[in-house]
Amino acid sequence: MRAELIAVGTEILLGQIDNSHAKFLSQDLAAIGISVFYHTAVGDNAERLIALLKEAAKRSDVILLTGGLGPTEDDLTREGVAGAFDLPLTFDEEAFVAHVTPYFERLGRTPTENNKKQAWRVGTGIFLPNPRGTAPGQYVQAAGKHIFLLPGPPLEMRPMYMESVRPRLVNLMGESAIVSRVLRLYGIGESSAELEVKDLMAGVNPTVAPLASEGEMVFRITASAQTAELAHRLIDPVQAEMERRLGKYVYGYDDDHLASVALARLVENKKTVSFAESCTGGLLTSLLVDCAGSSRALRGSVVAYDNAVKMELLQVSNEMLQAHGAVSEEVAAAMAEGVRLATGSDVGVSVTGIAGPDGGTKEKPVGLVYIGVTDGKTTNVTRRLISGDRTQVRIRAAKHALFLVIQAMKKE
Amino acid sequence: MRAELIAVGTEILLGQIDNSHAKFLSQDLAAIGISVFYHTAVGDNAERLIALLKEAAKRSDVILLTGGLGPTEDDLTREGVAGAFDLPLTFDEEAFVAHVTPYFERLGRTPTENNKKQAWRVGTGIFLPNPRGTAPGQYVQAAGKHIFLLPGPPLEMRPMYMESVRPRLVNLMGESAIVSRVLRLYGIGESSAELEVKDLMAGVNPTVAPLASEGEMVFRITASAQTAELAHRLIDPVQAEMERRLGKYVYGYDDDHLASVALARLVENKKTVSFAESCTGGLLTSLLVDCAGSSRALRGSVVAYDNAVKMELLQVSNEMLQAHGAVSEEVAAAMAEGVRLATGSDVGVSVTGIAGPDGGTKEKPVGLVYIGVTDGKTTNVTRRLISGDRTQVRIRAAKHALFLVIQAMKKE
Repeated sequence: MRAELIAVGTEILLGQIDNSHAKFLSQDLAAIGISVFYHTAVGDNAERLIALLKEAAKRSDVILLTGGLGPTEDDLTREGVAGAFDLPLTFDEEAFVAHVTPYFERLGRTPTENNKKQAWRVGTGIFLPNPRGTAPGQYVQAAGKHIFLLPGPPLEMRPMYMESVRPRLVNLMGESAIVSRVLRLYGIGESSAELEVKDLMAGVNPTVAPLASEGEMVFRITASAQTAELAHRLIDPVQAEMERRLGKYVYGYDDDHLASVALARLVENKKTVSFAESCTGGLLTSLLVDCAGSSRALRGSVVAYDNAVKMELLQVSNEMLQAHGAVSEEVAAAMAEGVRLATGSDVGVSVTGIAGPDGGTKEKPVGLVYIGVTDGKTTNVTRRLISGDRTQVRIRAAKHALFLVIQAMKKE
Repeated sequence: MRAELIAVGTEILLGQIDNSHAKFLSQDLAAIGISVFYHTAVGDNAERLIALLKEAAKRSDVILLTGGLGPTEDDLTREGVAGAFDLPLTFDEEAFVAHVTPYFERLGRTPTENNKKQAWRVGTGIFLPNPRGTAPGQYVQAAGKHIFLLPGPPLEMRPMYMESVRPRLVNLMGESAIVSRVLRLYGIGESSAELEVKDLMAGVNPTVAPLASEGEMVFRITASAQTAELAHRLIDPVQAEMERRLGKYVYGYDDDHLASVALARLVENKKTVSFAESCTGGLLTSLLVDCAGSSRALRGSVVAYDNAVKMELLQVSNEMLQAHGAVSEEVAAAMAEGVRLATGSDVGVSVTGIAGPDGGTKEKPVGLVYIGVTDGKTTNVTRRLISGDRTQVRIRAAKHALFLVIQAMKKE
């Protein structure tokens, strides 16, 4: 099955917003085994939308449209589909009551006359519920094609796709269930990781797809079968083999990320943590605080940017700073222990380094980072040379520190 | 003039990367007065690319292609353009020496036989220099259309567009210069801001285009004229009128952002700063540290997540915490003064609030934030109720704190 995506909205063509749906939908369609051959964005213009849909119908089996389902005159997706496939457009009172008015009722408002447009049925289209907004979607079959009309706002589109579109597509493909599992790796490069599992990546069911971003590596394993349980059974041995080969880099699954796993491990181990940050400048702490419930493990942090703050709040001695410099193994260890004592936490973690663009020397180049982890008994300092610009050095240093927290919690 | 954008690359259709060029190019094309009617992404497939280019030639005057200029067999943009417009494809030794080999020489490497493909000239195409990579661009005129082939990596594409494409487009439109100026506003909503300058937004030369994101508001004023100086003269009165109406919200221009302006103001005023963060959890400090040269103003910060840390490191009294709660005007003031003293900075800034999803009450709901700013003599605390999820509350609280720093520095 061939699919294509059409985003409708002049604001995309003006560069005012990104066509952010394309990536989300493409990833999932690839995972369930549907090939996407085109992404197109087109403005709020019925004539051009109709021409594009006629073209799309020649080359694709499935057409997913996003946007243009609002109540205004500019919202033309229903008209476009009706025009391209010569279908009637009729107001459906029942759909209006079922899909449009409930949202207004919850807000204590009354729909306007305009909103009736949102219950116009395209041909024999099936309405798709949208509990998060006023625009129901539609599934229209015409000329042997499967056409899905979805709302533009991501918070409405994504759940509608998952709940009402994906199951229909899986069904159309003759499968009853498609299951994905994601392995999350840290500390291994994209090409090395792919080399280790090249044979598994050649598989067809399950498929194994790699994705790399900012020092992290992700593999998505996807299987299709008659039932979800059978699909899981197809995934299990492939996952086991991947973990056998790459296990030491695997830190999480599915929606995990480094900060959420670090937080979970700390909570499981009943340990509190604190951070002493220099070059990361609060970013490391902020990544942890972005996880709901971070107060269960985090006591606090000190961003010790100036050496005086390292001495005053973290009790790093002036002698040590003079002898080794602020970016050194010794100072990293002292900062970790200093913040642990200052905040009364179980574990102290420090980052000190040179984020650039200035401040690098031959001995201590831009990208040099020391990360210290201590529990008051044992202190480990890791030295890393990170490539990239100031922002990348800071992000990667913070991520590496989170990975070290995960590893430290594993050992206990 | 009508333009369309074509992104070439199977990785976009698989959802592995975003088509991030579309927004950048569309924004700039809109600013210089060229209408963009389609964005399309297509895979690394010559047949489909040729079909798409033939379609594009029927409906657009200018076609901008991004991607597919690498040295591998999958890089098919040159072949696609040659095929669609029936143009010869010839290896150009001179272009190879001028545009491909220098990049390798700088890296101390030798180009491979494959790289010769990157010097294949499409028809009578003009090569566009790419000092940042191995793939020169090309400007091809065929069938009365203007076709630009640009590399995929953003760090190569964007400067090539600005240096070699934009001036040619401006020229094609019969203008010699197009100039944009950006006004950056904080503290006013999108609809209120637009209402204030609706009459100016109806203008044609200069155009005034709004852009809103995460609590900030941007207006881009663009004028075209025979010379840059004349274009600036067209912009000046419109900018002056906008500042007359919206001046109190304008915090910066062009590439400024809240953190860079806050840092610049602190440095100008020779003031050092420190932050005491609770719900923002290091994010505020991190925004400042993301600006190169932040060490010129930032001394350090304390993330006081646990009340014990507020007491220990910021000298907030237990009595005050008990009487008013951690999220209160009193504690915000005490945290600001506490961090100022602890780090020895001139200005202390604090943020304490409830980011959610839990922890809200009727009196102190999720989104309630207090921001304190003190110079040791005067302390001001601002109360805000911020809507959005945990991440949004944290980002907007941090941005508001930066805005208050800018305002505090203005007064001196």
